[in-house]
Amino acid sequence: MSTVRLVGDADAGPEVRAVFDDIRATRKTDFINNFWRALAHHPPTLKRTWESVKQVMAPGALDPLVKELLYIAVSATNGCEYCVRSHTAAARAKGMSEAQLGEVMAIVGMANETNRLATGYQVPVDEVFMKVPD
Amino acid sequence: MSTVRLVGDADAGPEVRAVFDDIRATRKTDFINNFWRALAHHPPTLKRTWESVKQVMAPGALDPLVKELLYIAVSATNGCEYCVRSHTAAARAKGMSEAQLGEVMAIVGMANETNRLATGYQVPVDEVFMKVPD
Amino acid sequence: MSTVRLVGDADAGPEVRAVFDDIRATRKTDFINNFWRALAHHPPTLKRTWESVKQVMAPGALDPLVKELLYIAVSATNGCEYCVRSHTAAARAKGMSEAQLGEVMAIVGMANETNRLATGYQVPVDEVFMKVPD
Amino acid sequence: MSTVRLVGDADAGPEVRAVFDDIRATRKTDFINNFWRALAHHPPTLKRTWESVKQVMAPGALDPLVKELLYIAVSATNGCEYCVRSHTAAARAKGMSEAQLGEVMAIVGMANETNRLATGYQVPVDEVFMKVPD
Amino acid sequence: MSTVRLVGDADAGPEVRAVFDDIRATRKTDFINNFWRALAHHPPTLKRTWESVKQVMAPGALDPLVKELLYIAVSATNGCEYCVRSHTAAARAKGMSEAQLGEVMAIVGMANETNRLATGYQVPVDEVFMKVPD
Amino acid sequence: MSTVRLVGDADAGPEVRAVFDDIRATRKTDFINNFWRALAHHPPTLKRTWESVKQVMAPGALDPLVKELLYIAVSATNGCEYCVRSHTAAARAKGMSEAQLGEVMAIVGMANETNRLATGYQVPVDEVFMKVPD
Repeated sequence: MSTVRLVGDADAGPEVRAVFDDIRATRKTDFINNFWRALAHHPPTLKRTWESVKQVMAPGALDPLVKELLYIAVSATNGCEYCVRSHTAAARAKGMSEAQLGEVMAIVGMANETNRLATGYQVPVDEVFMKVPD
Repeated sequence: MSTVRLVGDADAGPEVRAVFDDIRATRKTDFINNFWRALAHHPPTLKRTWESVKQVMAPGALDPLVKELLYIAVSATNGCEYCVRSHTAAARAKGMSEAQLGEVMAIVGMANETNRLATGYQVPVDEVFMKVPD
Repeated sequence: MSTVRLVGDADAGPEVRAVFDDIRATRKTDFINNFWRALAHHPPTLKRTWESVKQVMAPGALDPLVKELLYIAVSATNGCEYCVRSHTAAARAKGMSEAQLGEVMAIVGMANETNRLATGYQVPVDEVFMKVPD
Repeated sequence: MSTVRLVGDADAGPEVRAVFDDIRATRKTDFINNFWRALAHHPPTLKRTWESVKQVMAPGALDPLVKELLYIAVSATNGCEYCVRSHTAAARAKGMSEAQLGEVMAIVGMANETNRLATGYQVPVDEVFMKVPD
Repeated sequence: MSTVRLVGDADAGPEVRAVFDDIRATRKTDFINNFWRALAHHPPTLKRTWESVKQVMAPGALDPLVKELLYIAVSATNGCEYCVRSHTAAARAKGMSEAQLGEVMAIVGMANETNRLATGYQVPVDEVFMKVPD
Repeated sequence: MSTVRLVGDADAGPEVRAVFDDIRATRKTDFINNFWRALAHHPPTLKRTWESVKQVMAPGALDPLVKELLYIAVSATNGCEYCVRSHTAAARAKGMSEAQLGEVMAIVGMANETNRLATGYQVPVDEVFMKVPD
C-alpha cells in the first residue's frame, strides 16, 4: 500500500487524464502502472516526471535496451524494489536475454565492490584520468 | 594520498608482481593505475579483485563499451570520484561519444529521481512485474 | 518480523519502562510504536536514542512540521520503509497538507537527480560557494 | 576539474544560451554557476533540468527557504559536496540562520541514525502507520 | 519472489552442481540458501561469488565472528533486508550474543549519524589523520 | 574548508569548553580534531554527539578495536572521507595491523557486492533466517 491513494481513471482530473492518455499513446497499451497512479497524487510532479522520462528513455545515441540496463543498474544500487522489478520487466520486453541480465548483475556487484575499495583506501586519482576532451 | 602506501614496482613481492604482469599483458600497456597499487597493500584482495574484474568486464553477452557505461552509472550513483573518473576515461578509450556520456548521465539522474519517488510514496509493485520467466 | 523480539510492556525491565513512560508522557498517548519496542532489545540504545530524538525534534529555530518534512526527505533518500511511513504519518498528524507532501517528494526527487549529475560530471565547486560566515 | 569541459558564454550554442539567459533573468544575477556550465555539455539535459528545478523550487505550498533546507538534507545524506556547498550558500542567501543550519544538521544526523536502526533490526511497520487519507 | 527462477537441485547443470556441492562440504550442511539458488541463474557469477566469499570469510587476521559483524554493519547501512537477516542468523550461529548485536547496531547508527555530520558540514581532514605507515 | 567556522579554544563559550575539556580528559590528549570544532557551531549537537559517541565506543560486549573496525566499514560504505581517515587512524592507534585493515576492506567490498546482488535479483528471505531468539 502506498502512502497516498493511487489515482484510478475515474478519479483523474483533466491534468492527470492528459498524462495518462499520453502514457497510453506512447506505450501503445492501456495499462498504467502504479508508479504513475501514485505520482498523480501531485499532478505537476506526474506531468514533469513523465515528460522527463519520455525524453530521456527515447532512442538517441544509446539503444533503448541499453538505457533500460542502465536503469536496472542504478535501481539495484539504490535498493529500490519497485524500480528493479519494473525495469527488469521492461528490459525483458525490449529483448534482454537472461545472459545479459546475468552480466548486468555481475557488473553492478563488482562496481559496488570496487567503489568501496577505492573509497575505503582513499585512492588518489591518477593524472591520466584527469584529462578532459576539448 | 591513500590511507595505505601505494606499492611501486620495486616494492612488489612475487604475488603482487604476478598480478601487475597480468594487468600489463591483458591491457597491452605498461601503466598500472593507483587503484591496483593501493589494493596491493593486501595481496589476496589484489589478486581476487583483478581476476574478478577481468572476468566480468570481458566481452560476453554485452558489448565492452556497454559494460563501461554500466560501471559509470553505478559509480556516479555511489559518489565514488576515483571510479567515475577512471571509468569515464576507460569508456572514452573504448569509443564512447560525448552524446552517449550525456545520455548516460541523463538516465542516471532520472533513475535516482524516480527511485526516490517510488520509495518515498512506497508504491506497491504491480502484479504484472512479478512474473518470472521459466 | 524484526530480527529481535519486540519488548512488550509486561517484559520491560525498569530502564525500558522508564523510557516507555517518558515516551507516553511526552507524546500524550498510550501508544508505543514498534521502533521503540525493538530498540528496547538494548536498553542503553533505547534510552540514548529516545533522549536524542526528543531533543532534536523539539520546537526550536525550526517549526516541528518542517522537522518532520526533513525527516521524510532523509528517509526517502535512504530507502527506509519504516521511517518513510512513520514520519509521513507524523507529519500528517502535525498538519502536513497533501500539497506539501507532493512538494517534499518533488524536491527529494530533484535533489537526488542533481546530486548525481554534479557527482557524475565531477563539477568543481564555485569560489563563491566557499565563503564561510564570520 | 569536471569530466567535461565547462561551457563558457562564448562557446554556448543557441539552446544553451537561451537557458543561460533564463537562469540570469530568473535569478536576477549575471552569475551562472559551474553546475549549469557542466550540464551544458548535453543541451537537452541542461534545458530539462533547469526547467524542472525552476518549477520545483518556486514558491508553493512550502516556503522557498524550507525547500532549500530539504535540498541540503538530501545532499548531505547523499554525500554530494557540490550540492551541500551550493545549497547551504543558497539557504543563507534566503535568510537561513546559523541556528537553523544547526538544527537541519542535527535532524539529518538523527534521521540517518534511526533509518539504520529501523533497517538493521528490520522493525515491522505498525498498523497505524499504514492508513492512507481518502 | 526473485526476478529470476531459483535453481533447485534437480535443475542444476554441472557447473552449478559443483558449486552447490562445495557449499555443502564447506558449511557441513545440506542446506543451500536462496541467495545461491538465485545466483545460479548465471553460473559464472555463482562460482566467482562463492569462491570470493569463501576466501574473504575464512579465518585470518580477524576472527570469523568479527567478520560476520562487519557484514551486518555494511548490510544495515545499505538497507539490504536479505543480507541483514542472513548475516544476523549467521552471526548468532557463530556465537554472537544479544548484547553484541545491540552494540553493533548502536555503532552502525552512530557512524551513519557522524558520517552525515562530517559531510554536511564538509569538515576538513586534520593533518594528523593523513599519515600513512611506511 | 568547512561550511561553518571551526571553533577555536579562544572562541569557545562555556558549553563548548566543557565538552572540549571532557574530550581532552577522556582521550588523554590535548588535541581536539576538526569534527568537534565544526560541531561546536551548534553546541547542543556537539554535546549530544560527543556523549553518544563516548557511550557507544566505550569497552563493552565488543572490544574497542572491533568497534573501530565497524566504524571504518560503515564509513567506507557511505563514502565519508573524513570518517574513513579519522577512524583508520584511530584503529591503528588501537593496534589494528595492516593485515586486519586488508581483511576489513575485503569484507566491505564483498558485502557491498553481495548486498546489490541480493537486491538486484530480489532474493526472497529463507524461512530459516526469520527465526527470532526468545
